[in-house]
Amino acid sequence: MSRVDEIYMRIAEADRPEVFIALRPQAEVAAEYDAALAAGGPLAGTVLAVKDNVDVAGLPTTAACPGYAYTPAADAPAVAALRAAGAVMIGKTNLDQFATGLVGTRSPFGAVRDSRRPEYISGGSSSGSAVAVALGFADIAIGTDTAGSGRVPAGLQGLVGIKPTVGSISTDGVVPACASYDTVTIFAADLPLANRAMAAMSAAQGPRPFGTSAPLAAPERPVVAVPAELPDLDEAWRAAFAEAVLRAEDAGLVIKTIDLSPFLAAAKLLYEDALVAERHDAVGDFLDATDADDVGLDPTVAGIIGAASRFTAVDLLRARRRLTELRAEAMGEWGDATVLMVPTAPGHPTIAEVAADPVGVNSRMGTYTNFCNLFDLCGIAVPSGVVAETQGSEAQFGVTLLGAAHEDAVLIEVAARFLGVPDVGASWVETEESVELAVFGAHMRGGPLTHELSERGARWAGEIATTPTYRLVALDTTPPKPGLIRDPVVGQAIRGEVWRLSASALGEFLAALPEPMMLGKVEVAAGETGPARWIVGFGCAADAGAAGTELDRDRW
Amino acid sequence: MSRVDEIYMRIAEADRPEVFIALRPQAEVAAEYDAALAAGGPLAGTVLAVKDNVDVAGLPTTAACPGYAYTPAADAPAVAALRAAGAVMIGKTNLDQFATGLVGTRSPFGAVRDSRRPEYISGGSSSGSAVAVALGFADIAIGTDTAGSGRVPAGLQGLVGIKPTVGSISTDGVVPACASYDTVTIFAADLPLANRAMAAMSAAQGPRPFGTSAPLAAPERPVVAVPAELPDLDEAWRAAFAEAVLRAEDAGLVIKTIDLSPFLAAAKLLYEDALVAERHDAVGDFLDATDADDVGLDPTVAGIIGAASRFTAVDLLRARRRLTELRAEAMGEWGDATVLMVPTAPGHPTIAEVAADPVGVNSRMGTYTNFCNLFDLCGIAVPSGVVAETQGSEAQFGVTLLGAAHEDAVLIEVAARFLGVPDVGASWVETEESVELAVFGAHMRGGPLTHELSERGARWAGEIATTPTYRLVALDTTPPKPGLIRDPVVGQAIRGEVWRLSASALGEFLAALPEPMMLGKVEVAAGETGPARWIVGFGCAADAGAAGTELDRDRW
Repeated sequence: MSRVDEIYMRIAEADRPEVFIALRPQAEVAAEYDAALAAGGPLAGTVLAVKDNVDVAGLPTTAACPGYAYTPAADAPAVAALRAAGAVMIGKTNLDQFATGLVGTRSPFGAVRDSRRPEYISGGSSSGSAVAVALGFADIAIGTDTAGSGRVPAGLQGLVGIKPTVGSISTDGVVPACASYDTVTIFAADLPLANRAMAAMSAAQGPRPFGTSAPLAAPERPVVAVPAELPDLDEAWRAAFAEAVLRAEDAGLVIKTIDLSPFLAAAKLLYEDALVAERHDAVGDFLDATDADDVGLDPTVAGIIGAASRFTAVDLLRARRRLTELRAEAMGEWGDATVLMVPTAPGHPTIAEVAADPVGVNSRMGTYTNFCNLFDLCGIAVPSGVVAETQGSEAQFGVTLLGAAHEDAVLIEVAARFLGVPDVGASWVETEESVELAVFGAHMRGGPLTHELSERGARWAGEIATTPTYRLVALDTTPPKPGLIRDPVVGQAIRGEVWRLSASALGEFLAALPEPMMLGKVEVAAGETGPARWIVGFGCAADAGAAGTELDRDRW
Repeated sequence: MSRVDEIYMRIAEADRPEVFIALRPQAEVAAEYDAALAAGGPLAGTVLAVKDNVDVAGLPTTAACPGYAYTPAADAPAVAALRAAGAVMIGKTNLDQFATGLVGTRSPFGAVRDSRRPEYISGGSSSGSAVAVALGFADIAIGTDTAGSGRVPAGLQGLVGIKPTVGSISTDGVVPACASYDTVTIFAADLPLANRAMAAMSAAQGPRPFGTSAPLAAPERPVVAVPAELPDLDEAWRAAFAEAVLRAEDAGLVIKTIDLSPFLAAAKLLYEDALVAERHDAVGDFLDATDADDVGLDPTVAGIIGAASRFTAVDLLRARRRLTELRAEAMGEWGDATVLMVPTAPGHPTIAEVAADPVGVNSRMGTYTNFCNLFDLCGIAVPSGVVAETQGSEAQFGVTLLGAAHEDAVLIEVAARFLGVPDVGASWVETEESVELAVFGAHMRGGPLTHELSERGARWAGEIATTPTYRLVALDTTPPKPGLIRDPVVGQAIRGEVWRLSASALGEFLAALPEPMMLGKVEVAAGETGPARWIVGFGCAADAGAAGTELDRDRW
């Protein structure tokens, strides 16, 4: 049986009709899958599900509101990029209507049930996307995240969920929730696949709008901030977070505790203050013009969006100013931490609990996610074991790593260390515009000067050898450094490393470089890092090279 | 008679009581002036006036509304920086109340009259500051600019007015007008002094919040966009602009015409749409809580700010989205232009004309200024001759050069070329964080590879010579390049140039540098660019240096 046939059988047997709002015909998907495998591409062989607030050409976009539906002529750029990379789109997934909710129950297409314990919620708003991946209906799924919609369901479903810095991935073709804070996210079972999917979306967009000085890797000793207090977490979940902290320490991460209060205070602005006006701006005209019963409105969602029209422009300006103040306070707490680690969700409610208190339970679910986009942070939700619950069943436990804007690559590397993924390679943030730098001697990994690279966000990118046209001499420097000298006559292949860094990091590195070291072009032989080529690399001043002592070539 | 005594005599004789809202006692200012001269500093010997919506410790800040007045304990950072650099604060100047206006007549302290033709307006809202400089009451003056308040009065008073990129100079201690778009500006009679004052304010603030990859200079052949149509300009003013275009061409600037419509469309959003809500956010609570007659409110200003409370949060979000769309359209028109040149003001109305139509005339005054801050542009208003008016008198004509955000240094250089200022030196944007690069041969000014520096925003910063420990060899390259080799035994002083550029520009330059050229540290002798020091500079690969032909040292 083909992989696509297996998936459709799994869907049929699972009896989860609420997961997909639209499922494409099996034969069509199977044909596309075979064609994608034949064509190749970084995502060939993967099956993709798409949250139904993101456009897929020819399928209705409902945002889980049947009366709102329209059928777009083109894929959203994020979807187009994944398909171009070889992913095959299987269907559109259910969500909390208009992406307003963190529970997964606010949909006329049915409450999306937890993949393991059907009486529990899936988490939302990207409920169907997360459950589709958790149940093996898809390998990757597109979600969206404004207040936690790409993280909470990842946490509850035991998945990796990547929520990039706002503005990194185009939200064209996405029904806005709060346009200023919306992001496209990816769910996958593991970090490398999620990273590859993000890379495909990112690469298709061309140069990043905010420049290329972002770090490409984490520092050598990342500092992980964790909350001193964990509000809204019951005993067993608290213990699971303590486990996660130990696991981070075991992975070589340095822990420091901070006061989370200014972070938590921001959440209220998103739903209870004027910031919620963006939700009315997005779909309020539609809501105001229609009868709730006719269009399949969820009453809780309609209540939230309807109330959002009451705020004045001055209210909104004040809420944004308050947000700026809270952010400054929060960043003061953050201090020198590399990332912030929090529980992804504070617990796992049942569908009945949500029905009894739709707003209260939802609000609690966002405790550790709501502030993120408001503060312009990026995040990755990762699984971290299970919580034994009172009824004898187990809840998935997850933590979210949060980073400053544009430090998405730092998060990928810290997440990889936390999960024990041996080598996640280049993060999705890395572009062709980053620069390769060939190093020999003291700057190589573990050397006394490696920190000069890693503190500038450079990423170790593999071992290299020069073409057999160089020799090394020992220079009279502290620490001792080798000087690379081109010598096609008696030259040898010299082993070194290649690092990747941004142009601005390279400029800073050069500005700080003491004589007699110099940087220019070095000829690298074909190898694991790529074909034969000239890349930026170390040499030395001519006089210092001439005065140097020939080094035993076997040392290098 | 001392300089301060002269100024106070000039003030007494001028009979312009409306210029200053508060003038400091002459003896106090004279004593401070002498102390500043003795202490030295980049602005020692200059007298400073400050618009009365900016805090000066111990003097009331009125924003031209007596009932609003409060007395701050500390100088605004912008004021403190200028005083620390040696400027002596003489008094607080009149303005259009709450900086709401471009005419200079909207003040209970009196309409500020034009410095040359008292029946005409001064331009506003920084009316008193501009007239104080024009009449020689001060050398420099602080203004603010949201919609043109730092440019229109500079134009009408024949001054230079620098309006930096929003966020460049702290607006702490400034009464907000529209907080998202407010900037602190400088008026001075000439560009070098205005630039020095900006530098003092900028340097005092520490690292710029938006990084340091901004260009430090203009490209070799700046392209100046000018409007294809000039709405609201009468015949004589149109001719003056045509003169300015010719003058720009004479200065070596390349002219292209663009459609200004999307720029002009944005203006309406600032005063007629929800963006005006920021003006209510700033001082609306004060206005709503008081009786207009009690507090000295200007009726036109009160009308504008009062009406601003009617907008909803959704109105504001839509106006901002419309602004984003217009900006994209405008930047499409802008294309590859280096700067945009427009008339600063479209005409020079009389005070009687403004009284007859306070809103209409004011609105026309902002035709060429309103869009600037909304589109995140920086600007410099510069004088450009006079316009012969029908009554036989002459109006000052001025143009404003506008640049993309953070391209303030480009503007300074283009303005210097336009004005014929021979060497304006480092712009206020340049910081210690920029990098010095020593070049020899083909990258020197006028050389075949100079463009590799100038297209990356590098600034020529002077001639240098190495310490007498180098020799030059001719390398086998195209174009021919000299290779600098350190040789303390037979070395000579080699002449070259130093350029300044950002770290990211340096990294990009290095990434593109072909072998055998290399960059490392070069020892520069003391000279006009600074003391003896090691700076980043050119060398060459050791093998290429050894194979090179010794160059006649007199050539270099």
